[in-house]
Amino acid sequence: MAKYTIGVDFGTESGRALLVDVSDGREVATHVHPYADGVIDDVLPTSRAKLPPDFALQNPADYISVFKTAVPAVLGESGIDPADVIGIGIDFTACTMMPTLADGTPLCALDEWRDNPHAWVKLWKHHAAQPEADRINATAEEMSESWLSRYGGKISSEWFFSKALQILDEAPGAYDAADRLIEAADWVTWQLTGEEKRNACTAGYKAIWSKREGYPDERFFAALDPRFEHVVDDKMSRDIYPIGEKAGELTEEAAAWTGLRPGTAVAVANVDAHVSVPAATVTEPGRMVIIMGTSNCHMVLGEEEKRVPGMCGVVEDGIIPGYFGFEAGQSCVGDHFAWFVENCVPGTYADEAMPSGMSLHQLLERKAAQLAVGESGLVALDWWNGNRSTLVDVDLTGLLIGATLATKPEEIYRALIEATAYGTRVIIEAFEESGVAVDEIVATGGLPGRNKLLMQIYADVTGREIVVADTDQAGALGSAMFGAVAAGAARGGYDTITEAAQRMARLKDVTYEPIPDHQAVYDRLYAEYVTLYDYFGRGENDVMKRLKALKAEVRS
Amino acid sequence: MAKYTIGVDFGTESGRALLVDVSDGREVATHVHPYADGVIDDVLPTSRAKLPPDFALQNPADYISVFKTAVPAVLGESGIDPADVIGIGIDFTACTMMPTLADGTPLCALDEWRDNPHAWVKLWKHHAAQPEADRINATAEEMSESWLSRYGGKISSEWFFSKALQILDEAPGAYDAADRLIEAADWVTWQLTGEEKRNACTAGYKAIWSKREGYPDERFFAALDPRFEHVVDDKMSRDIYPIGEKAGELTEEAAAWTGLRPGTAVAVANVDAHVSVPAATVTEPGRMVIIMGTSNCHMVLGEEEKRVPGMCGVVEDGIIPGYFGFEAGQSCVGDHFAWFVENCVPGTYADEAMPSGMSLHQLLERKAAQLAVGESGLVALDWWNGNRSTLVDVDLTGLLIGATLATKPEEIYRALIEATAYGTRVIIEAFEESGVAVDEIVATGGLPGRNKLLMQIYADVTGREIVVADTDQAGALGSAMFGAVAAGAARGGYDTITEAAQRMARLKDVTYEPIPDHQAVYDRLYAEYVTLYDYFGRGENDVMKRLKALKAEVRS
Repeated sequence: MAKYTIGVDFGTESGRALLVDVSDGREVATHVHPYADGVIDDVLPTSRAKLPPDFALQNPADYISVFKTAVPAVLGESGIDPADVIGIGIDFTACTMMPTLADGTPLCALDEWRDNPHAWVKLWKHHAAQPEADRINATAEEMSESWLSRYGGKISSEWFFSKALQILDEAPGAYDAADRLIEAADWVTWQLTGEEKRNACTAGYKAIWSKREGYPDERFFAALDPRFEHVVDDKMSRDIYPIGEKAGELTEEAAAWTGLRPGTAVAVANVDAHVSVPAATVTEPGRMVIIMGTSNCHMVLGEEEKRVPGMCGVVEDGIIPGYFGFEAGQSCVGDHFAWFVENCVPGTYADEAMPSGMSLHQLLERKAAQLAVGESGLVALDWWNGNRSTLVDVDLTGLLIGATLATKPEEIYRALIEATAYGTRVIIEAFEESGVAVDEIVATGGLPGRNKLLMQIYADVTGREIVVADTDQAGALGSAMFGAVAAGAARGGYDTITEAAQRMARLKDVTYEPIPDHQAVYDRLYAEYVTLYDYFGRGENDVMKRLKALKAEVRS
Repeated sequence: MAKYTIGVDFGTESGRALLVDVSDGREVATHVHPYADGVIDDVLPTSRAKLPPDFALQNPADYISVFKTAVPAVLGESGIDPADVIGIGIDFTACTMMPTLADGTPLCALDEWRDNPHAWVKLWKHHAAQPEADRINATAEEMSESWLSRYGGKISSEWFFSKALQILDEAPGAYDAADRLIEAADWVTWQLTGEEKRNACTAGYKAIWSKREGYPDERFFAALDPRFEHVVDDKMSRDIYPIGEKAGELTEEAAAWTGLRPGTAVAVANVDAHVSVPAATVTEPGRMVIIMGTSNCHMVLGEEEKRVPGMCGVVEDGIIPGYFGFEAGQSCVGDHFAWFVENCVPGTYADEAMPSGMSLHQLLERKAAQLAVGESGLVALDWWNGNRSTLVDVDLTGLLIGATLATKPEEIYRALIEATAYGTRVIIEAFEESGVAVDEIVATGGLPGRNKLLMQIYADVTGREIVVADTDQAGALGSAMFGAVAAGAARGGYDTITEAAQRMARLKDVTYEPIPDHQAVYDRLYAEYVTLYDYFGRGENDVMKRLKALKAEVRS
């Protein structure tokens, strides 16, 4: 009898359930359920009170709705007997965190707290905790905290302790009322199993935890704020569960939500990016997975812990058990091209695209593909949304150099694509210089299927062969794979994620090989990019920061 | 009885006649006659043979057509008695030069030469003589020619000897057949008067002549090419006539073309930019005239000869008799905004502009005017078409810095305007540092009437009051004024251009005053501009030149 697992992928706007055949990874049925309250960044759904700038909240009730609608939908659509569904896995955006009572009740579900924004889920892209992140970084530098270098030298406003400290700063009452501060990933797993089990991936990448050293010392938290000293023991947990373990089994209540059988195995939760790695067939060092979408996320495994300048983090067992998982990122990729298409492409191009039913992206890609490497005379710095790796600097901005009166939109479009490829090469070189091998690239995410020119440019610029994961929903597939591992071989699943990946993940029948003639020209353009990168990114000319500060000054 | 003069302004695409009342400068009638052959940059009109890259030629017969159509048209339209037209003045694009026989017959009018491109008029923007310009500059540096610093350290491919040397290099037969090599300005005056009289303005600004030193020594010309040694005495003239003199009187033949009386005074020819200075009321030092159009041309008078880095030239009596006329320029102003509107403004903006009948320029100006100074966070280097002053470098290219995912088209548009204003400020500072005062700006050309935001930005950035000349055709008006001076007071005109300017030229009733709050912010932005200007323009990072060389390499 065939066995199945379900991966549930919690994104920014919606949750997706994917029902997968355990034997071969065949994607049998999928269903997407949009969150009723979506991203809450304007007014609170309860009081309609205006939110401060840079707030981005969510309603945890929306997550439960995904279990109640998307999971029954894939069961119904596939006609599979719930008894044949042996496991379920979860992946989530991160750090997406929330305050709850000891029993898991979200603070925002309580009458007395529902009108306080700090009682709600803080979504990954809640950027209002920058002052707290700055304080954490400054204090860590001052106290020479050794963990800082595990995160490329700087932690982000998006991360767990920045957000937790913001609650304490701005809503100490809510902070006190919160028995638990928890990742949404772990909270939904808790709602399925009745057990609070925290995963190593979010703990490691977002909450400064490591398998060997644990959390930062309480002296550090006390230095941030005396009331923050015992945050870990009071409101979190030191019991962290590796990726690939079973978190528990479905409760009667959760079984009723989903239509699955009580007792179905539930995997320890994971992060949407990291769970994509085995879904892209990668369970060993040497092959870098790049999730290419609105932004780029780069992940690669290593046998040893290395400190790589400007990486987002390194976590033991954080991606694949037994390995150190390294993560880096670029904050502006698909977003960059979307900005360009929306703001910088003349109406005549829309007129040209329309009759053939092409999108502006497709038209630009076609025109840009006709250009020789170097023909545009343009080089850009892809910092329209700051630089994540390797400079970890949100205050950097975009640069375009080389335009003439003959410069065409498709030349700029191509230059922006090339700039993101140069940015990826900088990251790869940082890893290799630190002793983390990157021999090949496995691409996944939304862009690889949509833009062949981009893929060839990445191959030419990085000098690496690029293969493409054969799934459009790597997050959900990866979660379904971890669901199969949670079930175990004895119940029809697998005992390790490596085995699951061998059977359930595959690559598309397409390879992008570097073209030597292109590489030779791109090497010269890359040298220009690096000179500009260093000049504007490493303090020689801080014009970008000064302009940004001036902008803030005149707007205030 | 009222007296009148006619100014004939020879532009790039057409010639314009303007009939003006001598007593008060009232513009009575105007007529524009497009050149039948226009700019010849694709194929020769005779053989239809394809022209090499960067060629830009004209047909001198088109100039005569202007006399035959536009002058009779203004006489007809105004109903003025030709006997009351006391003078005629000419201004022309420059350096626009041609080979002729000793009697003035253009080489291209002869059967044996009409199929040779080098027999035709080389228009100012003929850029194919760059190798010759490079040779002239290199040789001049090697021989430490003192005149080089009169031209900011470099002469242009557009100038007289670059073009003459190209004829010798590429068509030595045509060079031999040419009894005369002459500016089109002087050639048309010759056609009107029957006398070859060369003007000091083109000789000084375009042909390395000065009142005190004459032309470069024959040893210099011989060093370029032994056959070039006697170019001045063989094919040009050492008799140069100051601006403001009478060149001669209308011949019977020219009177028949124009409908004017034989014997009507004809002024020594002038250049379209320089003739605009008195038309903008300026006949004394201290007030800089800026002609703002596709490019900017900056002219200011001085009592002494100063060497200003990167200026286009200084010529004694070249603009107003008795003064040194200084010229500088920016090669990309209106062209810049036109490029942006054509290539970088999304269709949604056209949709927004359409219902109200606004142009995209007007919509962008309106949106950009709502931004505070510094609010965009952007700074650009206005080098889309190279930098004329103060770097004299055609291989520099554009730069935009500071863009984010929130950057809007009107912010970029404003940044481009600001960049041209910073470029003008660099020029003003170069003049002032060299001892040439610039206390106030008088604007003329197409832009001042069309873009109030631009004018205010120029006032704020330069910290100078800006007034605007009250004419839309400063070239033709200036020529009519010189026509009145050629006639002289005894015949109802004026004895000096200063007198003519007092009566015939005026300013609009509008002044742009620097706003101190804006100036303070622009001072900070200008400092950023200067840092980038020096870094990319003075050899610290020659990325622009390398990218341009690479572009040429991959295209070849």
